[in-house]
Amino acid sequence: MNEPITYRPIGYVESSYEQPAPPEQIRAAESRIVLDPAFVEGLQGLDVGQQIVVVFHCHRSDGYELTQHPQGDRGRPRRGVFALRSPRRPNPIGITVVELVEVQGNVLRVRGLDAINGTPVLDLKPA
Amino acid sequence: MNEPITYRPIGYVESSYEQPAPPEQIRAAESRIVLDPAFVEGLQGLDVGQQIVVVFHCHRSDGYELTQHPQGDRGRPRRGVFALRSPRRPNPIGITVVELVEVQGNVLRVRGLDAINGTPVLDLKPA
Repeated sequence: MNEPITYRPIGYVESSYEQPAPPEQIRAAESRIVLDPAFVEGLQGLDVGQQIVVVFHCHRSDGYELTQHPQGDRGRPRRGVFALRSPRRPNPIGITVVELVEVQGNVLRVRGLDAINGTPVLDLKPA
Repeated sequence: MNEPITYRPIGYVESSYEQPAPPEQIRAAESRIVLDPAFVEGLQGLDVGQQIVVVFHCHRSDGYELTQHPQGDRGRPRRGVFALRSPRRPNPIGITVVELVEVQGNVLRVRGLDAINGTPVLDLKPA
């Protein structure tokens, strides 16, 4: 029990956002997921226009508190981290549903991904 | 790049299912998430009746193929693993939206979780 679990990125996010920004702002932009070419066959059956779940590692997340002010707004009362989508969580896993705009080889163009440039991607699933 | 990413379980699933079964069958049953007591404060603000996202590690998953028959049904054509929710994937992360039925201390009773007994839980988020 409580043994560490180790994953390896299947790819990385390419985004014009190099720094954290409000999620709504990042989501409005298009970004790309550059998949390790070894995994391209795994994309068969994903269709342009469909929604997919992107699972990623919030690599800039540095520690966490069990209760946090929503979106860092001190005017709002603290809530438990599991009732928030803050990236500052015990296991900094981010999950976002995006729209698949285009697939070219190992590069997926997506809309709605709130992850900054260089974010490691762990998994893709149909929404 | 491509560095391993390590997480630690925040808790474990308690279910009457000890072996993999069709997801619909497991989902119909109630199960429990036993959180590490150290994280209980992180549950503040989760309400009974609400939907939460459970992120878990499919610990029985053993290897993967990049294309698979949906639900192992050889009568159906192969699809890419990223277009399927098969647990046999490069990083065997499972994500399910469940209904929170009850919280008692560090134990969450939930409905709809397709994870077998002993499954390590990595994260909880509001749906």
